[in-house]
Amino acid sequence: MGCLGEGHFNEELENGVSIECGEVGFQEEGNTNTAAIEDAVKVLLVGLGEDINREGIKKTPLRVAKALREGTRGYRQKVKDIVEGALFPEAGLDNRIGQAGGAGGLVIVRDLDLYTYCESCLLPFQVKCHVGYIPSSQRVVGLSKLSRVADVFAKRLQEPQRLANEVCSALHQGIQPAGVAVILQCTHIHFPDIESIFLESNQQGWVKKLVSSGSGVFENKNADVWADFFCLLKFRGIDVEKISLRGSSDQHWCPSLSALSAKVSSKIEPLDPTMITAVSSILNSLGEDSLRKELSGTPSRFVKWLLNFQSIDMDVKLNSSLCGRIDTLNINREINFNDRQIHSELNLPFWSQCEHHILPFHGVVHIGYFLSEGFNPIGKSLLQSIVHFYGFKLQVQERLTRQIAETISPLLGGHVIVVVEASHTCMISRGIEKYGSSTATIAVLGCFSTDFSARAAFLQRVASATSSGGQQFLLEVEMF
Amino acid sequence: MGCLGEGHFNEELENGVSIECGEVGFQEEGNTNTAAIEDAVKVLLVGLGEDINREGIKKTPLRVAKALREGTRGYRQKVKDIVEGALFPEAGLDNRIGQAGGAGGLVIVRDLDLYTYCESCLLPFQVKCHVGYIPSSQRVVGLSKLSRVADVFAKRLQEPQRLANEVCSALHQGIQPAGVAVILQCTHIHFPDIESIFLESNQQGWVKKLVSSGSGVFENKNADVWADFFCLLKFRGIDVEKISLRGSSDQHWCPSLSALSAKVSSKIEPLDPTMITAVSSILNSLGEDSLRKELSGTPSRFVKWLLNFQSIDMDVKLNSSLCGRIDTLNINREINFNDRQIHSELNLPFWSQCEHHILPFHGVVHIGYFLSEGFNPIGKSLLQSIVHFYGFKLQVQERLTRQIAETISPLLGGHVIVVVEASHTCMISRGIEKYGSSTATIAVLGCFSTDFSARAAFLQRVASATSSGGQQFLLEVEMF
Repeated sequence: MGCLGEGHFNEELENGVSIECGEVGFQEEGNTNTAAIEDAVKVLLVGLGEDINREGIKKTPLRVAKALREGTRGYRQKVKDIVEGALFPEAGLDNRIGQAGGAGGLVIVRDLDLYTYCESCLLPFQVKCHVGYIPSSQRVVGLSKLSRVADVFAKRLQEPQRLANEVCSALHQGIQPAGVAVILQCTHIHFPDIESIFLESNQQGWVKKLVSSGSGVFENKNADVWADFFCLLKFRGIDVEKISLRGSSDQHWCPSLSALSAKVSSKIEPLDPTMITAVSSILNSLGEDSLRKELSGTPSRFVKWLLNFQSIDMDVKLNSSLCGRIDTLNINREINFNDRQIHSELNLPFWSQCEHHILPFHGVVHIGYFLSEGFNPIGKSLLQSIVHFYGFKLQVQERLTRQIAETISPLLGGHVIVVVEASHTCMISRGIEKYGSSTATIAVLGCFSTDFSARAAFLQRVASATSSGGQQFLLEVEMF
Repeated sequence: MGCLGEGHFNEELENGVSIECGEVGFQEEGNTNTAAIEDAVKVLLVGLGEDINREGIKKTPLRVAKALREGTRGYRQKVKDIVEGALFPEAGLDNRIGQAGGAGGLVIVRDLDLYTYCESCLLPFQVKCHVGYIPSSQRVVGLSKLSRVADVFAKRLQEPQRLANEVCSALHQGIQPAGVAVILQCTHIHFPDIESIFLESNQQGWVKKLVSSGSGVFENKNADVWADFFCLLKFRGIDVEKISLRGSSDQHWCPSLSALSAKVSSKIEPLDPTMITAVSSILNSLGEDSLRKELSGTPSRFVKWLLNFQSIDMDVKLNSSLCGRIDTLNINREINFNDRQIHSELNLPFWSQCEHHILPFHGVVHIGYFLSEGFNPIGKSLLQSIVHFYGFKLQVQERLTRQIAETISPLLGGHVIVVVEASHTCMISRGIEKYGSSTATIAVLGCFSTDFSARAAFLQRVASATSSGGQQFLLEVEMF
């Protein structure tokens, strides 16, 4: 066993998660399942028209299979063992005089970052988890175990309310306290459909949902103890009442279930049945039952979403819309800056799909340019279209940045700077789980590659604008 | 191999971290080292006057040993293998027209949360890591690998500048780009000494340091590319120049090296040599050389710090200062609220040590009470002293909350509410790594345990106050 493995092995021993080394065939079964998912991912890539042997995606099936197995490891973990090893005797107050310590007296942990997979569409969604309990029988649980137990259920295919209920009831059973309370702030990415993105001006980026679950003294939603819990959240700036008001709606939680998605998807051609079968087989390999009611439409919804990233058709469309202009250009012509004015379009949203992990990345694009003599500025809507064209395919951020720059440069005379800022789902939903991180890439063409002051002037403009623009966009998940 | 182990085993394969299963004795060596640390921790607990068989701490040596091994796993990881498996060919721009993609064009990842152990005092410190590189030779690296490589060096005993240099040079060697840039915002807890905490009114909670390291085109600190990097950080609200100005000082980074600590410690009795030997043996078991220059004073600094949490003497002190008052009390006497005015002291800082992990937890205490007839309010300084008395020992937060409430209740007539808000180092520096999380506990005595509106009124007052007080305190690490 390697060094990392050893560390986690120890971790596991400590948590009391059952060691299944002894179970013959467990490792083998895991390998078989991983291989099955790998094969299914190859089917999906072929369905997208990709060459599965091209560098960049040739290891993608393996990466995806491992990430999915890791991201659903909760199916193979046992809560009881985690909690049992971490119950500590702790004297409480005499009940006649008050509540504290091991008898009464609320204990909560706020702001646990989790992610989980949406059972309706298979995309990861982010969860801010607040969990608490009221000890009884002079017994408290190690604080980190609240997080570990929540994570066991997060690492499964989920829906917010079920996740809250499962965490709550598992903790109640494990700790046997006076009551358990769970509040989850869930944020699901709303990936606009490529067919609809050009029609709608208001592209909603996120669907948010606040759910709660309570047991014991928290079973009654109007119990005073809930008010205590809410107050302790308020100390951290989390106003549950306000969030609930904002979030309450009869909208579907998962955007793939919404009426609009259904409407748009009804227009597209019938889905490739081999791709749908492939997704069903992935669900089964993860330990799920693909026939479970909530999962019955998941394979086709996932395939529909995936088909947004079929790149071949889009290249044709892009070329037909731009080729007339591109023909008129000469990149190397003499440059004449009349006024050295930097034109810019900032915070153009984009949506893309990481080709290494088949996971979304999304953010904003900032474009700046000097207009060479004889060229006209490009309108915002065309720039936005170009951004979307290159976003909706299997991508890496470095290439997206270059492609946008290369495409607009000849339309403007060659002096272009493009900055792409993104949040990568693969940075949160895989091993490293870096929740707040964000990535930035730059492409510079023409004088922007040599003239530092021009670059600095543009970047400074973005910095001023992003304090209320792009940064807000990127951080929205955290702010709720 | 268990299920968790399996997940990480896969992860490991993917990263290309060398699998050392085949190396005979590796696992065994790990177990031997863990057992050696466990024994050393027992010596330290005995040195603190603890009963190592008491519930709550009897598994602490094992927990500490595993956490330390896990937290220093970087000694047993190889960077080269992580990066090599994740280099992707990516076309760049023709250098004559600009820089982007696989040739030129900055790529950065911002806001990676890491933690590491301070080599001077063995306490964990937190790092916000911003890392970037400029690709060359049409080759980019998987974005998550920047984080993984940084983590390899973070998971060792460190000092900020060395950490930055090691990450920078490892990435440069691994990716062979045009240059690598690393900026670290490091935050070290400043644990006031129990001897000095009552003397100083200004208890500084944190020491902060900003360090950078650059290779290739970033080697010159005045190179224009650094300005690009800084601008991209500014998009996220990180103003490096301002931070540098604030942070620049000739102060020692680790508070244990500062003049004040030295002065205070010179007053205390000679340290127990068996404890110092125990810490040296821990360093060696982690794979370090305890004779390395930077580590030569670490064992005695750690032991000095640990001795703050010797609980026995403090109980005596506390009793002598309070017993006169406690004798005069009768908790069950008739209550008469003249005005039902809630007296409160909010945001009293505390520092404590988690007895499950021998790691700091710290935060603020909010105290509210009704004054029964015949009692006088307690001054802030006495409340603060009580908080410190119960903080400076091996603790759990639930018990700390109860002990504070139980101690002040009889001084005031029995109607007390105590809220403790804390950040637990064990929540970030162990397996779960939940950086933004915080814990809250409540103790309610007398009418606060039955009168919901009294409790709500007090909590509401805290909520109003913490928007600029306690919350700020708790979040300071994240804000820099």
